[in-house]
Amino acid sequence: MKKFVLPNLYFGGDYTPEHFPREVMLEDMRLMKKAGVNIVTINVFSWAQLQPNEDTWTFEWLDDIMDTLAKNGIFADLGTATASTPAWMAKKYPEILPVDANGIRYNHGSRQTFNPNSPKYRELSHILVRTIAERYQKHPALAMWHVNNELSQLVNYDYSEITARKFRDWCKDRFGTCENMNRKWGLHFWGNNIYEWDELMPPMKTAHQVNTSLLLDWKRFTNECYMEVAREEIKILREITPDIPITTNFLYEFKMLDYFAWADLIDFISVSSFPDPKITNHPGEAALSHDIMRGLKDQPFVLLEQAPSQVNWRLANVNKKPGVMRLWSHQGMAHGSDSFLFFQWRASVHGSEKFHSAMVPHIGENSRVFREMCQFGNELPGLKEVVGADVQAEVAIVMDYNNWWTVEFTPGPTALLDYLQMLKDYHYPLFEQNITTDIVPCDRDLNRYKVVIAPLLYMVKPGFKESVEKFVSEGGTFITTFFSGAVNEFDEVFEGGYPGPLSDLMGLKVEEFEAMKPYVNNSLVMNGTLEELTGEFESRLWCDILQLGTAQPLAVYGSDFFKGTPALTVNEFGKGKAYYVATMPEHGFLRNFLKKVCADQGVSPVVEAPDNVEAVVRSKDGEPFLFVMNHNYEAVEVTLPEGTYIDLLTQEKLTGTISMESVQSVILKKV
Amino acid sequence: MKKFVLPNLYFGGDYTPEHFPREVMLEDMRLMKKAGVNIVTINVFSWAQLQPNEDTWTFEWLDDIMDTLAKNGIFADLGTATASTPAWMAKKYPEILPVDANGIRYNHGSRQTFNPNSPKYRELSHILVRTIAERYQKHPALAMWHVNNELSQLVNYDYSEITARKFRDWCKDRFGTCENMNRKWGLHFWGNNIYEWDELMPPMKTAHQVNTSLLLDWKRFTNECYMEVAREEIKILREITPDIPITTNFLYEFKMLDYFAWADLIDFISVSSFPDPKITNHPGEAALSHDIMRGLKDQPFVLLEQAPSQVNWRLANVNKKPGVMRLWSHQGMAHGSDSFLFFQWRASVHGSEKFHSAMVPHIGENSRVFREMCQFGNELPGLKEVVGADVQAEVAIVMDYNNWWTVEFTPGPTALLDYLQMLKDYHYPLFEQNITTDIVPCDRDLNRYKVVIAPLLYMVKPGFKESVEKFVSEGGTFITTFFSGAVNEFDEVFEGGYPGPLSDLMGLKVEEFEAMKPYVNNSLVMNGTLEELTGEFESRLWCDILQLGTAQPLAVYGSDFFKGTPALTVNEFGKGKAYYVATMPEHGFLRNFLKKVCADQGVSPVVEAPDNVEAVVRSKDGEPFLFVMNHNYEAVEVTLPEGTYIDLLTQEKLTGTISMESVQSVILKKV
Amino acid sequence: MKKFVLPNLYFGGDYTPEHFPREVMLEDMRLMKKAGVNIVTINVFSWAQLQPNEDTWTFEWLDDIMDTLAKNGIFADLGTATASTPAWMAKKYPEILPVDANGIRYNHGSRQTFNPNSPKYRELSHILVRTIAERYQKHPALAMWHVNNELSQLVNYDYSEITARKFRDWCKDRFGTCENMNRKWGLHFWGNNIYEWDELMPPMKTAHQVNTSLLLDWKRFTNECYMEVAREEIKILREITPDIPITTNFLYEFKMLDYFAWADLIDFISVSSFPDPKITNHPGEAALSHDIMRGLKDQPFVLLEQAPSQVNWRLANVNKKPGVMRLWSHQGMAHGSDSFLFFQWRASVHGSEKFHSAMVPHIGENSRVFREMCQFGNELPGLKEVVGADVQAEVAIVMDYNNWWTVEFTPGPTALLDYLQMLKDYHYPLFEQNITTDIVPCDRDLNRYKVVIAPLLYMVKPGFKESVEKFVSEGGTFITTFFSGAVNEFDEVFEGGYPGPLSDLMGLKVEEFEAMKPYVNNSLVMNGTLEELTGEFESRLWCDILQLGTAQPLAVYGSDFFKGTPALTVNEFGKGKAYYVATMPEHGFLRNFLKKVCADQGVSPVVEAPDNVEAVVRSKDGEPFLFVMNHNYEAVEVTLPEGTYIDLLTQEKLTGTISMESVQSVILKKV
Repeated sequence: MKKFVLPNLYFGGDYTPEHFPREVMLEDMRLMKKAGVNIVTINVFSWAQLQPNEDTWTFEWLDDIMDTLAKNGIFADLGTATASTPAWMAKKYPEILPVDANGIRYNHGSRQTFNPNSPKYRELSHILVRTIAERYQKHPALAMWHVNNELSQLVNYDYSEITARKFRDWCKDRFGTCENMNRKWGLHFWGNNIYEWDELMPPMKTAHQVNTSLLLDWKRFTNECYMEVAREEIKILREITPDIPITTNFLYEFKMLDYFAWADLIDFISVSSFPDPKITNHPGEAALSHDIMRGLKDQPFVLLEQAPSQVNWRLANVNKKPGVMRLWSHQGMAHGSDSFLFFQWRASVHGSEKFHSAMVPHIGENSRVFREMCQFGNELPGLKEVVGADVQAEVAIVMDYNNWWTVEFTPGPTALLDYLQMLKDYHYPLFEQNITTDIVPCDRDLNRYKVVIAPLLYMVKPGFKESVEKFVSEGGTFITTFFSGAVNEFDEVFEGGYPGPLSDLMGLKVEEFEAMKPYVNNSLVMNGTLEELTGEFESRLWCDILQLGTAQPLAVYGSDFFKGTPALTVNEFGKGKAYYVATMPEHGFLRNFLKKVCADQGVSPVVEAPDNVEAVVRSKDGEPFLFVMNHNYEAVEVTLPEGTYIDLLTQEKLTGTISMESVQSVILKKV
Repeated sequence: MKKFVLPNLYFGGDYTPEHFPREVMLEDMRLMKKAGVNIVTINVFSWAQLQPNEDTWTFEWLDDIMDTLAKNGIFADLGTATASTPAWMAKKYPEILPVDANGIRYNHGSRQTFNPNSPKYRELSHILVRTIAERYQKHPALAMWHVNNELSQLVNYDYSEITARKFRDWCKDRFGTCENMNRKWGLHFWGNNIYEWDELMPPMKTAHQVNTSLLLDWKRFTNECYMEVAREEIKILREITPDIPITTNFLYEFKMLDYFAWADLIDFISVSSFPDPKITNHPGEAALSHDIMRGLKDQPFVLLEQAPSQVNWRLANVNKKPGVMRLWSHQGMAHGSDSFLFFQWRASVHGSEKFHSAMVPHIGENSRVFREMCQFGNELPGLKEVVGADVQAEVAIVMDYNNWWTVEFTPGPTALLDYLQMLKDYHYPLFEQNITTDIVPCDRDLNRYKVVIAPLLYMVKPGFKESVEKFVSEGGTFITTFFSGAVNEFDEVFEGGYPGPLSDLMGLKVEEFEAMKPYVNNSLVMNGTLEELTGEFESRLWCDILQLGTAQPLAVYGSDFFKGTPALTVNEFGKGKAYYVATMPEHGFLRNFLKKVCADQGVSPVVEAPDNVEAVVRSKDGEPFLFVMNHNYEAVEVTLPEGTYIDLLTQEKLTGTISMESVQSVILKKV
Repeated sequence: MKKFVLPNLYFGGDYTPEHFPREVMLEDMRLMKKAGVNIVTINVFSWAQLQPNEDTWTFEWLDDIMDTLAKNGIFADLGTATASTPAWMAKKYPEILPVDANGIRYNHGSRQTFNPNSPKYRELSHILVRTIAERYQKHPALAMWHVNNELSQLVNYDYSEITARKFRDWCKDRFGTCENMNRKWGLHFWGNNIYEWDELMPPMKTAHQVNTSLLLDWKRFTNECYMEVAREEIKILREITPDIPITTNFLYEFKMLDYFAWADLIDFISVSSFPDPKITNHPGEAALSHDIMRGLKDQPFVLLEQAPSQVNWRLANVNKKPGVMRLWSHQGMAHGSDSFLFFQWRASVHGSEKFHSAMVPHIGENSRVFREMCQFGNELPGLKEVVGADVQAEVAIVMDYNNWWTVEFTPGPTALLDYLQMLKDYHYPLFEQNITTDIVPCDRDLNRYKVVIAPLLYMVKPGFKESVEKFVSEGGTFITTFFSGAVNEFDEVFEGGYPGPLSDLMGLKVEEFEAMKPYVNNSLVMNGTLEELTGEFESRLWCDILQLGTAQPLAVYGSDFFKGTPALTVNEFGKGKAYYVATMPEHGFLRNFLKKVCADQGVSPVVEAPDNVEAVVRSKDGEPFLFVMNHNYEAVEVTLPEGTYIDLLTQEKLTGTISMESVQSVILKKV
């Protein structure tokens, strides 16, 4: 993938001056300059304002905004305005409205209420995108395109007849014949065989569970439908403005779309990032989000939406405490974000989000939140040289959206499986020890890493076996867990015992599994092979009962009828090692186990620091930038690695042990 | 508002003799006389019995009931029978059936299953009401009209195309142009602008949240539709029986209707009152309900439905223990109820409510419940002179249904906001200290009170600023809380900081707010200005962070980053004071704080009594009636205010300290 | 009822070789022989495979399976394949799809998605059943017919217009006139009277509760509709294969169907039995299920589906520990099961149930689960002589599905009533003491028992009063509880006080009842009359407040206003006694109380054994078989009744005290 580097270190927010009297926009220009804002996202939801009916266009207000921005030296992340359809369209063309699994049609009245497969939605949105692109292609304010918005988030699936027909065609393309599809999906189960394509139904309301392979392909299909929506907008934009970079904003915590598949579509990844600012929040959550976003293209990305302070959609919404907005933005940069935009510039006075925080709150300029924005924005230019630098990681965690989908669609063995939580369970222990992690898809080259972890890899796709066997045989360390290697890419079980194609590598087979009730534990009793890790550790959620081939046990279960049988194993494979974790160990165990496994491969922490002090290195042209971030709400002492550093924001020289205030961050360059 | 006084102190219940063999009715007459019953509510749900098809009327059975009642000296609260539509109507005119937000039409088979806006429902119900009114206009049993029943309770909204069209017309009347509506509602947010009226949709199923101003006006519109249903029935009744008083029964604990707007429609307010008789229930709950009902017209009202013992619709339904039915009825009278009816006279043997208690239980006359009814009914005439007396209150709490609706529709800042609970939070501490409270709407004259409290007054309507500023400047004390003065009557935020129009009066602005997670606390640390209140008190739910103007701090926060900033303030304004409570303090604090504020204004308890002993004064022509009610399930001693009293029920003379049995009440007149 | 005895002691499982390559079937034959399998259930869901479109039949694959089975000496429990409709049928005849209470039609895509009343479904399913029956009528593999599958479980009700019309006809047949129905159902309540049959609606979405008598008859009607589905299939089968026994599988824990009404339809009862194998599960749960199934025809039955180890549909699914599958199968036999089939033979690789356990797991033959199956299957022939033996019980519990339905449909007095739990509450204490219990319907002859218990007999049907009065007057002991005798078979309350027709027998009336809040207790204070039971015992859920006639109190309440009034009574009636338990006592009380009541009647435990050791006797031709089962997960000592026994599985001779391993069972014959 060609590396894309932003031409600028952008700072700004979502902006809707058209919701206010015009004089407010002029006041905004003053405040933006005061805060150091150099970009705003506009035009995301304004289709109805641009096109009050099918035959009328009203671009004057948008021209005015673009011109005002340009006059004030501020760039636009220009939305394609396709994220919210006008009311007249729903009335004139009801087909643009999505349909739910009960067959009930949605109504106009919110946002994203469109059927992604409606030909009329496509046609009208293309006219809109082309019109906007042609109008502003040469405009000096135009910095980047913002395609649609958080696609599929609110309409996860459409079940209209339009989409059903398209799904049938998609399946026909994929399988050729009904018979082949019946076989690959196992539709003979419960006699759901199809003999004519028009017998195939999307997974709508029916008496009991729908075939899991169908659900998986329905999800893949829907992902592709939404990709098509984006691709077609992008095609128009590239034709008219080949040099303007294009993005669309992702959301890390949901599984609706396969973002790895999306990565090639756009020039750079951007994300809406809203961790809960309650003080008990784990700082690894944002780190994991950032690592995923960076991993999608294996490149820097952009934090396109953060909250200046609180959001409005949690049960109860707490503020970002003083300094946290700055700390979390710096954390974003440490993990690869090269620009910082916030939702929203000015607090709205109408609608659903009027109590979502804004860079300019309802009370206005004289406010903590705006003051912090000014500080952050004005010191940001000092970090410009970091833009484009690479994050340094020797450990990778495999993440696969198809796997996420299907392992959670499957009825049983336990509804307590949570793939994202499993990723966190393996990511956080590394994060806490300042071992930086890349997130990689199944088909990425693993050989640049020293340690690769694939938690809960239920689905093993073609090619992964070969890739990971090569990686281990050449000296890498691989870790996988229970309920891995169970099914292929069609959700067909590998017969003969899990982990199926990974059995040779892991040196074992799973004879049976036990899904544990909530609050029931088992334990790992270490057998002394790993000197660093002795004693007994709690485990929960699941126990695989193993038949070992070439694998050696490192721990056995402490209870239940399989007490004394292997719970953790290692298999020597070529020059490397493959570990199998057959249950879900307690957090403390994983911290020490992963530390040991990393140390064996020569992977060590970026900085040995107190709890909740994070350290990450980005480097560019061989020059490292050291980010040190104190996530504690109290001051700590941190000993820097040997050398003398310059603080990019203060130009101060630092060496040895430094004092860090509560939620302080420093970004250092070695001198 | 002209004062209406009932001609009688009524006692009775809901009555459906047509569900039993005729001989049971004759037995009922004997039992009613034994119990002292002088009124029954009849004909509420009997449309289908009166009109078996569109062309046939069968009034004979109702004539028989009316005649039998008259012959036995019992009056009728005569229902208009419009609360339940006949099955033939649903079949013949499906338009009378309501439609839900998914577009799914309801079916016949329960009660209240009608579309309030159906022209056919209106037409047929008017024929029915006119027929009944004409038939019984001169009937000696006719004492009052009971219009429909608990309107809107079961069909909160109708989303039929009939109603959608009406809503569009309503909006057109309200806003004149789409553009004006777009602007006032802020429909530009998420691009939901409307350019033609028929583009406007009721808030039906859509992909995400609907505009909050639209929701508010949709609620107002629906309230008006139901008012129209009642008004049209009333118009017919007034035309035919101008001298017969009219009511319809309300429910205090729901926010479906704006009862202040309804108050003028009817001659007197009546209510269905069903507090949970579990012994842990707070006796303030019923008191608040009664205070609201009295406040609607600022006049006495009627307890039109109480349960003789248990209801049947809670998770588990406990009995009213011996004496509680009498105690709670006397409590109702203390707060303004001038008659007492129960649901239901005789336990039904069919249908949904057969295990709801009745004055005559399934076992019949030989039962505790019936014996208690006889005692209560036979002593009731002793209280006749109380009818029409006014409740004495110097403190008022502002209640506003529009505010209730919109503060709970708003997504964020926290879903934990509960307006009714906030009213309780301020009402109960006063109740517990025997400081009687009126409940008043925003537009009532405040100057007759010494203390006015407006909890969570999120919406400030035009005129309230002037009214409350006048009240305070002339010497009154005003208290409001966090998240007040945030929006105007269109749900548009007041820019420049909350509490918006109340900022001058309160002498402060809100810089930011923090919605607290469940189980997270902050505290108020008193700064010594209020001598009576020192120390630290827990607070929860919310913290406003304030910028003080002329206000003086009385307490500061005890923790979080805004520790030490004001949490409770007072502002001298003219001759009065305005207090701002920026967080939700613990109950004990509010008790003491409100006591102190009242004492400063010379407002003192009716009686200083032990816990859970309530005292209220009603007075008529200068003569006070003192109600003392022991809500404890054990005996207590109560010291009466100076003087000698006569117990209206026993004619005993009382003075000084009296003993009160468990759940005993006394109603006293000074001699 | 004529007694049916299976010709064989069958062992096997659900089998779908058509989902695998043909060579797997040949391997299966080897494994089945190894395990001792002699029957498989096939063809349950394979309609779509047999009939790919309306004009085409493809029986070759099923011929092959049947022939292969026959060749290998394995019998077929042959499904009629009507449990899952083909996709083409839904497309061609949408009427076969059921409709929900909102009027939304289901879609094809799962199983059991058919409208039981669709004439087209009936027609096509009859063609199918006839075709299968004619084809295999003489086939040597055919051992029994498996009609449809777990009928109604997934489509509890159909609300299509087809069914609505049929329901109207059913009501017309039942009531003759609308007026009669109005009266019996009490449709005058809330004015829901019907004057023409087509005004009657099934209980679809409406504004509030639907008439409870209508709900009850709607349930009865639906039960009959599903019976009709089965009866029509059975009629065809009996016509073509008069000598082949017929069954269909039931599910004990649901109340969808009235299985007592079904019992006559089929030759023997079979059941899908899936107790949760977590170690805290009460072994009485399976015992109750088995006792119900045996009680349906008062004959042995068949465990047609058990799980070899875990299922896949609980929140988290644990394994059957080693030995438990065998223990639970032996428990099934102890209670009357004469054959043992498992779901499923070979673990599927597709669809919803791929992580449900199988006799042959994914890993294959070399597995604990398969080894246990081999052990169990190979020792099973030793138990052949038990087949057809009767279970010996002197105590009966009355169970009535109509009662179950209606007591839980009724709004109030408390939603905490759970009829099945009440049956358990009275069954488990007997089970724990090895007092074997029959489950009987209301209309079975009670006089063969010594003690009859009817918990929560809300509905008393015609004839029961006479039956139970005869039983008691002749010396029997009867026990019933609170909220019994409240309504008749139309759900009409018996006026004059519960327990209505049982009042004479019980010698009391219920004056009022108190439904208790969760976590609130009262108590029974014994008055000394029962010497064995003194002291105070907790009670919960409900308290009836009684007026005693001839009954004598045994215990009084310990608290609340009815403290000191009777909570437990006995009435001498003829030669027998009738006990009334007016509240829900704690488990320990019921254990001792039931023990005492049984002892008074000379009913004693089969074996006095340690906790969780179960003993049951079946006998044939006067010869008893003693089943002793250790449900503990540890070894115990058990003292056998006097005599010498032979262990049918080991041929070992046993006498006196024996050691039983964890989860061990022995089946003994006296020598």
